[in-house]
Parts: sequence; C-alpha cells; structure tokens
Amino acid sequence: MNTLAKSGGALLISPSLATALRRMRVAGFATSSSSSSSLNWEGGVSMVQGASRGIGLEFVRQLLEKYQKGYVVATCRNPKEATSLSDLKNRFSERLLIQKLDVTDETTIEESAESVRERYGSLNLLINATGILSIPGVLQPETTLNKVEKSSLMLAYEVNAVGPILVMKHMWPLLKAGGGSGTEREVAVVANLSARVGSIGDNRLGGWHSYRASKTALNQLTKNVSVEMGRRKDPVVCILLHPGTVDTDLSRPFQRNVPEGKLFTKEYSVEKLLHIINNAKRQDNGKFFAWDGQEIPW
Amino acid sequence: MNTLAKSGGALLISPSLATALRRMRVAGFATSSSSSSSLNWEGGVSMVQGASRGIGLEFVRQLLEKYQKGYVVATCRNPKEATSLSDLKNRFSERLLIQKLDVTDETTIEESAESVRERYGSLNLLINATGILSIPGVLQPETTLNKVEKSSLMLAYEVNAVGPILVMKHMWPLLKAGGGSGTEREVAVVANLSARVGSIGDNRLGGWHSYRASKTALNQLTKNVSVEMGRRKDPVVCILLHPGTVDTDLSRPFQRNVPEGKLFTKEYSVEKLLHIINNAKRQDNGKFFAWDGQEIPW
Ligand SMILES: NC(=O)c1ccc[n+]([C@@H]2O[C@H](COP(=O)([O-])OP(=O)(O)OC[C@H]3O[C@@H](n4cnc5c(N)ncnc54)[C@H](OP(=O)(O)O)[C@@H]3O)[C@@H](O)[C@H]2O)c1
Ligand SMILES: NC(=O)c1ccc[n+]([C@@H]2O[C@H](COP(=O)([O-])OP(=O)(O)OC[C@H]3O[C@@H](n4cnc5c(N)ncnc54)[C@H](OP(=O)(O)O)[C@@H]3O)[C@@H](O)[C@H]2O)c1
Repeated sequence: MNTLAKSGGALLISPSLATALRRMRVAGFATSSSSSSSLNWEGGVSMVQGASRGIGLEFVRQLLEKYQKGYVVATCRNPKEATSLSDLKNRFSERLLIQKLDVTDETTIEESAESVRERYGSLNLLINATGILSIPGVLQPETTLNKVEKSSLMLAYEVNAVGPILVMKHMWPLLKAGGGSGTEREVAVVANLSARVGSIGDNRLGGWHSYRASKTALNQLTKNVSVEMGRRKDPVVCILLHPGTVDTDLSRPFQRNVPEGKLFTKEYSVEKLLHIINNAKRQDNGKFFAWDGQEIPW
Repeated sequence: MNTLAKSGGALLISPSLATALRRMRVAGFATSSSSSSSLNWEGGVSMVQGASRGIGLEFVRQLLEKYQKGYVVATCRNPKEATSLSDLKNRFSERLLIQKLDVTDETTIEESAESVRERYGSLNLLINATGILSIPGVLQPETTLNKVEKSSLMLAYEVNAVGPILVMKHMWPLLKAGGGSGTEREVAVVANLSARVGSIGDNRLGGWHSYRASKTALNQLTKNVSVEMGRRKDPVVCILLHPGTVDTDLSRPFQRNVPEGKLFTKEYSVEKLLHIINNAKRQDNGKFFAWDGQEIPW
C-alpha cells in the first residue's frame, strides 16, 4: 500500500509515508497540540499488551471484528507461538501488527514503543491485559500467611504492577500525540486490567497475598499517573477495569467456587469493558470500574 | 538473674528458665488457649523492627522509659553501628535485647523469631518501623512518570511491603502465643508504619511512585492478614499507622515543603502512636489510623 487513499473523509496514509512524517514530527516539526500533531488514523491505533490469549486476545479480536477501521498493535512474549494472533493476522493483515513485548524486560517495551512510533507515530488506546495469578511450580496463590513467599510477592509485583507502569511510561508520548484523534473518543485511553480482589476496602476473604497486593499497587500507580497527567491536561485518561470472573486460563483452577451465572465468557466481558473504554471521559480519569460500569472502592 | 522474683502480683522469670519452659510449650505441652499458654511477662514483650534510628528508635526509647516494666526486642540491620540502641542498652540492660534483622534477608527474620521464642516464648507487640523513601544514588522519589525506574519500584516494594509481611509471617506464632497477656491490652498488636501517601483515595498530588505503591501494597497485605486472622479469632489485632510528617532522616530532604507547625518531633508522633496502639481493640483490626486517631481512606 503505497498510495494515499481517501476513505470516509479521512486520509489513510501508507505506513512508510507515515513513518517519514512521524520522524519529522518527532524531530520537532509539528505543533504541540495533540490532535493536530497526530495523523488522523481512522478508527485510531490501539495497543493491546498481553494479547496471546485470554482477555487480551479477545480485545484484539473485537477491536478488529466489531469495528470496520482502526489499527491494532497486539503484543505478546512469544509471537511465534501466538497461533490465535497469527490466525487474526491472516484475516486482518493491514490492520494488525504483532509485536514482541515481555513486561519483565524493559528493552522489549522500549523497542515496541519505537516500532509504533515509526509506523503510526501515535496511540489512541493502550490496554494492559497482562496478569499472573498462578504458575505451576512457581507461583501459587497463598491460602494463608505462613505460605507467603518472598519470591511470589516479588514476581507478581514485577509482572502485574511494575510491568503495566513501564508500558505506560514508554507509550505515554505516543498516547499524548494521539489523544482521541481519529476515534470517537475525546481522549486517548489507558485501560489497565486490575481485579476486584485488589480492592482493600472490599477485602473480606483474605488470601492470595501476592496477587492482591500487586493489583492494589497497580491501582495506586495508575491513579498516580492519572493525577499527574490530569494536572498537565494531557489528552489521555487512565482507568482501571475489573473484568468480572472470566473463563480463561487464569481463572480455570478456581472456577469451582464461582456461583452459577457469575462466570463470564471472554466475549461478554470484553464487550462490556469496551463499552466503558469507548465512553471514558476526562472526569473518569483515575477511576476503577467493574465490567458493569460500577465503581469499585479502593 | 537466676531467681524467680515476685513483683506486683506477676511472676518475673529469668530468661534461662523461660527458655526451658518455652521449649516445653513449643513442644506441645501447653494448652491451646493463648493467654494461658504464654508466660505473663509483666508489661509484655514488644518487638520494634527497624529500630536503629528515627521513629523505630523513639518507640524503643518510650517503651523503656515511659513504662516501668516490659521487655523490648529492638532489631536493626547493623547492631554494632546502632550506637543509640547501645546507649539504651547501657541503661536498660535487662529489659532491652538488640537483634540483627534485615528485612531483605529472610534468614535474619527467622533467626530473630527463633531467638525471641527461646528467650521469651511470645510477643505482645510488633511494630514494623522500617521504611525507605530515598537512598542517595540508589532510590530517588520520582517527580514524574518518565523518571520511574524498575529497580526503584522493586526495591521499595521489597523493603516497605514484603519486609513487614515476612516479619509478620515469622512472628505470628509468637504473637498468637502472647495475645494481650501481661499487658493492659486485650490482644497482641501488630502496628505497621505506613504513610498517608499510600492512600489511593487521598492521592491528589501524584509522584513518589515507588514509595506510594509500596505503602499501598503494605496496606493491602496488612488488611489481608487482619481478615484471615480475625476469622481465626487469633488474639492479635493488625493496624496501620501514619505518623504524620516527622523530623527524621527520611523526611529531611523534603521538609521545606512542610507547612509551619506540621513537622512533628519523633517524641510527639510516637507518643500519639503509642496511645493508638495501647487502645487498639478487636474492632480496630485491619484499620489505617493517622497519628491523631483519624481513619485514613484506602
Ligand atoms: N480471568 C479472570 O477471571 C480475571 C478476573 C479479574 C482480573 N483479571 C485480569 O485480567 C487480565 C487478563 O487475564 P486473563 O484471564 O486473560 O489471563 P490469561 O488468560 O492467563 O492471560 C494472561 C496473559 O498475560 C500474559 N503474560 C504473562 N506474563 C507476561 C509477561 N511477563 N509479559 C507479557 N505478557 C505476559 C500471558 O502471555 P503468555 O501467553 O506469554 O503467558 C497472557 O497473554 C489480567 O490482568 C488478570 O489479572 C482476570
Ligand atoms: N518521617 C516521616 O515523616 C514519615 C512519614 C510517613 C511515614 N513514615 C514511615 O515511618 C517509618 C519510620 O520512618 P523514619 O522516618 O523513622 O525513617 P528513618 O529515620 O529513615 O529510619 C528508617 C529505618 O528503617 C531501617 N531500614 C532501612 N532498610 C532496612 C532493611 N532492609 N532492614 C531493616 N531495617 C531497615 C533503617 O535502618 P538503617 O539505620 O540500618 O538504615 C532505619 O532504622 C517508615 O516506615 C516510614 O515510611 C515516616
């Protein structure tokens, strides 16, 4: 695709031309206003981080299938093994870019940001979907205090809290450049997948120390960025999302305790979450929403 | 001291005899009721973890000076360099035990628990006072998102959140054995030094990502333990404390922003915090209090 194509009033520009234009912009040729400084990629450019499977993969699928336009950057640790993403790539070759990103390796985050900058120059949506709860032989959700291990606490924190914040750090210039431009949203959105068990106020069961504390910390870090960037009037809104209990690999070992009707399909949960994302306004900056739009206490 | 001394109605027992009795108890000779299974150390046995300087040191001083009775285990990373603790040891040799404990080295926590078990067999109060905010050349409180470093996030988490929870893990059997026995409290108390900036709901300034997130995680971990142990009816209450802005090494680099009259002396803050600790009841389990007794939102 090496031509300028006009579609629905918006210019669709080839990636290579975009790259050249971006380089100019990054080098300081553009105005500082976010909406005018970003190309109007129709439908916007979304990144789903942690997209190999589960909720992240479903976000990629719905962003491609439900919307006629828009580019999706799907990141995962091992693109070669991400067969479901490859299947989507076969169907949406122009609109889907698959990139390697491991949240525990900051270099891969920087490289990914650099690729997006070169290709699109901006982002309008970042969904951090990565998360670990149990890994056989490595991480076991704790049932009681005396099973708490330092290595588990540190690992869950690294992946669930530090990972998303580092992704936000490196993607922020792209989100600021993008804002809501090219989308129906008024701002760019960062949606971090948290969990209700990360709520301190709502904690009535105990247990799962490593996972809970990491999500609570993610909540604080996300809120913290929302406060700083809200003050700077950046055209970006950060929200935290609880997807409900969703039928994925993550919840599988614990599904027998889920009450009837409370185990959601990925399709249902992501549909609900996309609704929240698409309607996110400036006044939602820094809030923590459940799948049904209810705010969750800290 | 190798005699049994009767004082104020309570038996004071020499450490070596206590050791023998404890060993019996630990080996399963005692009843399961906490108050009857612990020796009635008059004034109780308190551990202050992170006692080399600052607020922790002041807790040790007040526990020794303000009360006529009671044993204090003061832990620090480098007992040989803890000169202020050595000075107190010269004045209170029978009542003060100084032990090495580095929260980043779990072996030292276990060894410390084992020493307390051998010497006293129980604990009635655990104050986790350790905390890091800035370390020149290593940890710098972040002013903005793009200064956030993975190493800082991980280090603050390790010391400020993981450290205290591991200390709770290893001291719990001693606290459970102690309960309120020998003190005027109805329960044993774990008081973890948190900070108002760890509150998500109260976050209006942003910045200090590593410190904030670590304290938020500490709040969740402490709440989590309080929920589990409350359900088990263990005679232990866990609370979180914000000491105010206190004139110590930790706050020194940031004191110029503190409004007039809002920088407390260690003496004042610890007096207030000891009042909260001494009055802690079962219904306070899992709560987060400021120095003035007000609850802080999560
Ligand atoms: N499912 C639920 O019931 C539920 C409930 C509440 C909250 N959540 C949250 O929702 C999010 C998505 O969960 P899910 O149910 O979809 O989980 P999942 O099916 O287990 O998928 C987890 C995803 O995280 C990725 N990941 C793990 N470690 C990573 C790393 N170091 N770098 C990059 N990616 C990594 C995995 O990639 P690999 O394929 O490479 O391992 C996978 O794509 C998580 O944040 C989770 O905590 C889920
Ligand atoms: N001061 C304030 O304004 C303020 C406000 C809110 C909350 N707080 C909290 O109150 C608590 C006490 O603070 P402070 O002002 O007394 O701080 P401080 O004067 O800097 O003392 C910190 C203490 O933590 C110890 N420590 C550091 N790393 C450790 C480790 N790995 N293992 C064991 N001990 C370690 C230090 O021991 P070394 O001497 O070996 O370094 C020192 O005893 C902290 O949790 C802090 O976050 C303080």
